Amino acid sequence: MRTSLFLVALTLALGAAQAQDAAAGRVKAAACAVCHGRNGISMAPNAPHLAGQPAIYLVEQLKHYRSGQRSHEVMGVIAKPLTDTEIDNLAAWYASLQISVQVP
Amino acid sequence: MRTSLFLVALTLALGAAQAQDAAAGRVKAAACAVCHGRNGISMAPNAPHLAGQPAIYLVEQLKHYRSGQRSHEVMGVIAKPLTDTEIDNLAAWYASLQISVQVP
Repeated sequence: MRTSLFLVALTLALGAAQAQDAAAGRVKAAACAVCHGRNGISMAPNAPHLAGQPAIYLVEQLKHYRSGQRSHEVMGVIAKPLTDTEIDNLAAWYASLQISVQVP
Repeated sequence: MRTSLFLVALTLALGAAQAQDAAAGRVKAAACAVCHGRNGISMAPNAPHLAGQPAIYLVEQLKHYRSGQRSHEVMGVIAKPLTDTEIDNLAAWYASLQISVQVP
């Protein structure tokens, strides 16, 4: 019983690790850098910073762009071919970047 | 000619300053803190960090929420009564927060 519980936990953990591969997301994110910056700090005044954003939020937004629920000329085209795994990876990469804020 | 150009520039600058009042935005932003954090660092996994986001992006998104072009149950209700000036001020406040990123 204990062993099977352990195996279930291990399988779930491996599944999560597979589903969210920040290193793979980093490679994929090269295409995002033009607007969102190499480290997720945006270069364009109408593009948000992605660094440190919660993964759940990023996954949700990319899926909304993919489905058309959130519309944006460029992001619609970019998100269209992304798989769920690629979205998870991209989100994991950007979420892994630590940000700190300085209040004026 | 020089004087009139200077006056035009001054008027534009004052106009911009009036249109974007970060201090007023800070006060207004108290209502946003529940989800987006007191200093724009989100407390909720499905709410984005707003600290340091480009003002132009924030203005655009708040107007999209207000018009319904971008849909979100909570943000739709919150953005509905905002005036253009309040949106400009909120954007100015969040954009004034400096963020820095640490790459893993």
